[in-house]
Amino acid sequence: MALASSSIVPLPLPLPTYSTKRPLLAPCAAQRTPDAATTVELPHHQEQRSKSTVNLPTTLSNLLHLHLTPKPEKSLENVAIALPADRRSPTESPKEDVSSLCSELHGSGDWSHLLNPLHRWLRREIVKYGEFAQATYDAFDFNPFSEYCGSCLYNRRRLFDNLGLAKNGYNVTKYIYAMSHIELPRWLERSIRADTWSKDSNWMGYVAVSDDTESRRIGCRDIVVAWRGTIAPAEWFEDLQGKLQSLGSDHGDVKVEHGFLSIYTSKSDATRYNKSSASEQVMEEIKRLVSFYREKGEQVSLTITGHSLGGALALLNAYEAASAIPYLPVSVISFGAPRVGNIAFGEKLKEMEVKTLRVVVKQDLVPKMPGILFNEGIKKFENVTGTLDWVYTHVGLELGLDVRSSPYLKKGLDVPGFHNLEAYLHLVDGYLSSDTEFRLDAKRDVVLVNKASGMLREELRIPPCWYQSANKGLVCNSYGRWVQPQRDPEDIPSPYRNGPITCHS
Amino acid sequence: MALASSSIVPLPLPLPTYSTKRPLLAPCAAQRTPDAATTVELPHHQEQRSKSTVNLPTTLSNLLHLHLTPKPEKSLENVAIALPADRRSPTESPKEDVSSLCSELHGSGDWSHLLNPLHRWLRREIVKYGEFAQATYDAFDFNPFSEYCGSCLYNRRRLFDNLGLAKNGYNVTKYIYAMSHIELPRWLERSIRADTWSKDSNWMGYVAVSDDTESRRIGCRDIVVAWRGTIAPAEWFEDLQGKLQSLGSDHGDVKVEHGFLSIYTSKSDATRYNKSSASEQVMEEIKRLVSFYREKGEQVSLTITGHSLGGALALLNAYEAASAIPYLPVSVISFGAPRVGNIAFGEKLKEMEVKTLRVVVKQDLVPKMPGILFNEGIKKFENVTGTLDWVYTHVGLELGLDVRSSPYLKKGLDVPGFHNLEAYLHLVDGYLSSDTEFRLDAKRDVVLVNKASGMLREELRIPPCWYQSANKGLVCNSYGRWVQPQRDPEDIPSPYRNGPITCHS
Repeated sequence: MALASSSIVPLPLPLPTYSTKRPLLAPCAAQRTPDAATTVELPHHQEQRSKSTVNLPTTLSNLLHLHLTPKPEKSLENVAIALPADRRSPTESPKEDVSSLCSELHGSGDWSHLLNPLHRWLRREIVKYGEFAQATYDAFDFNPFSEYCGSCLYNRRRLFDNLGLAKNGYNVTKYIYAMSHIELPRWLERSIRADTWSKDSNWMGYVAVSDDTESRRIGCRDIVVAWRGTIAPAEWFEDLQGKLQSLGSDHGDVKVEHGFLSIYTSKSDATRYNKSSASEQVMEEIKRLVSFYREKGEQVSLTITGHSLGGALALLNAYEAASAIPYLPVSVISFGAPRVGNIAFGEKLKEMEVKTLRVVVKQDLVPKMPGILFNEGIKKFENVTGTLDWVYTHVGLELGLDVRSSPYLKKGLDVPGFHNLEAYLHLVDGYLSSDTEFRLDAKRDVVLVNKASGMLREELRIPPCWYQSANKGLVCNSYGRWVQPQRDPEDIPSPYRNGPITCHS
Repeated sequence: MALASSSIVPLPLPLPTYSTKRPLLAPCAAQRTPDAATTVELPHHQEQRSKSTVNLPTTLSNLLHLHLTPKPEKSLENVAIALPADRRSPTESPKEDVSSLCSELHGSGDWSHLLNPLHRWLRREIVKYGEFAQATYDAFDFNPFSEYCGSCLYNRRRLFDNLGLAKNGYNVTKYIYAMSHIELPRWLERSIRADTWSKDSNWMGYVAVSDDTESRRIGCRDIVVAWRGTIAPAEWFEDLQGKLQSLGSDHGDVKVEHGFLSIYTSKSDATRYNKSSASEQVMEEIKRLVSFYREKGEQVSLTITGHSLGGALALLNAYEAASAIPYLPVSVISFGAPRVGNIAFGEKLKEMEVKTLRVVVKQDLVPKMPGILFNEGIKKFENVTGTLDWVYTHVGLELGLDVRSSPYLKKGLDVPGFHNLEAYLHLVDGYLSSDTEFRLDAKRDVVLVNKASGMLREELRIPPCWYQSANKGLVCNSYGRWVQPQRDPEDIPSPYRNGPITCHS
């Protein structure tokens, strides 16, 4: 449903603040920009690009310049920038029965015919999974003054209710915790208090399953795993470059980034939440759910999602699930994910029919990590050298987004903003095809973009980074004293809280 | 009532992070530090200090170094740093009938015998007035995205209830608005929205009056005026230096800082909230209340309070009230206030028996403004030149506080922190006398210090600058959209809202 024009109050709109003049910092950037028409690409065919594609920027700072490349302004000038005036319009379209496209939506035909133009059913499914990934940030306790820093704020039964995601029709069945045996600075969030719930582990995601209604609507019982990412900057991923690690002799030449693998597989008997690894926790739950629903004769699918680091973990998880569970359709919807493994890893995923849709904002640096120079430059040799075990590669299909397509977003350089998941979801919501403008009847709340960024244009009058708790969590007790509140006992993390499937109606 | 020791859990306490070694930035500062025993001083007698006092730092940066001067650590080492463990202790002592000292508490004897050591009744009254001043910050709408930025968040009937100050037994009778005809950068807080309640005026304070119970307890009907200060840095006051302005031929040599006078007296028919000036608004209300209660045969007092700029306005207001209303006892309790006028101004206040208690943290720069060098250096000539009309001077008595006295506060340099009103109130609450340590049975919530600063020691585990609204004021409406909420119509500012005294029971 398009917004009625009467509910739009066009605000006076100054011209975009950047000009078509050569940006000061990027004297040669214009020639280097990939054509906007190539935003949906098959990465395995990248070697067929022209030689100018191989001549990629060789340093991180050169790469940054790409973002200042102006797009002709004509396309922006005619767009009225406004939030719906009365703010009383729905944030999504009415649900439709998509069961007729069940396997296609999960990638059975490599999403051909669904990606360009983007089918509205697929767009909505992508946003749904993206919101599952966003939940891992929104419910994460980042507060270092909290005893429970690094855990989920709510127990699994209340997670979706508290975040407004109950509408999606899924129930969380298990929380996943992770640790790392190797030094990964800026990864673990930890309380500064002595009496903390865990010094080693972080809440890293969850497993959920579609309820009966949603299962009927989408045509299968859908198990979802959502992996939390990291708020570490792009450089964090750069630091991981060049440390590929073999998965063992059973896996041939397959190698993956050892930092990601460490988070996915580390465990220690000395810990409370990682006596088993994230891998073991998640696989146990997936197997349990698959058996449970297969025994009931249901069609089961597994969809794994994550943003940033979470997208990398999603791919490792997909690899493991496809290896371990025969005939299970496994798909990955990742957002701004870095490269994870070598070419053999990608080929093995392809062989196992793991379907991967990588949603990528082209100005985002993280999907170019690790190994910007290394990988792009070397790809032309692939035919000669075969499955190089020392080259990272992307897998699957890419849905390419462009921050310049949205009239709501600022045009300047904003490296963290380009990687922000809410900005991704906004761009997906407005995406029609690789060569059309942002759709103006997009319904998702634009204000969400500024939850943890300042990407929205000033004219919209939305405060930057507004997602914050009242008084940083302190509450005034009946004695008039400000205290860190006791967490509801139900929401105190427990390694023993994952139980049988309680409900799925 | 002292806290039971069982309710204190001493936290492991590292040694203070600064040492008695010479601070890097202050090679000679130790010799310059005023003796701690002189914290309660009669400023008009400052010229009697030794010559070394005249040899004051000649630049702002030199002055900053004073704050790094370490105090012997012995006094700190023996203090257990802890917040009450169960946080279930009262934040103040039970109220006592102080009516027997009514006029002395309002300064009739220049607070002699009450200041050193500080009488507990006076301490409590100072905190009460300080909380009235703090209310002007806590209820101020600083949000530039709010349509009502620069106003009070609540109407006058709800102000004290919403801030937990109803316990003090006062009722707000009028709000005061101010504007300025001269350029005072960083003073006016204004909405970035086009549709704002006012482009010219800010809420600048309020008039309140004690209710019957409180009036009986303190021995008179107490009219309070609380003036809002500014969050501008010390340099803001420095910029005002040297612009003394005459009050007119009726006032002889009296001159005051023209920036403060502008805020106090500006008005314009083109505005909605300053068709009358702050001066006219406040004086009209004071006169109305004085007449009202005098006609009932009551003893009436006027106490004017304010922090920073608010303390300056309090003094102008006191000057005007004492000039205009015969036989009205007028006292000023100011916190971190800068100098306001010349020596003739100070003498005139003294002549009119305006009693001024200036609460001053000795590390705070603002009370040294305007004119650090100028005034301190010149004072020795006073006897020669008489009432110099071009020299700023402080008036009244000073209650000197020292951030180093509190075991809860960090010892490092924190220029904005030294000026923070909540830090002032904390130090008053712990103050016994000029030569004793912070009292350990102080009950005021220490956590309040960090509302808008990071002054509390890390061991206390209190987040810095924690006083913030959830989601920067945005709320999720029933359509799932995040919006700036409509303000309750009752709380929308109105220039016509000041009415008759509604209740004082």
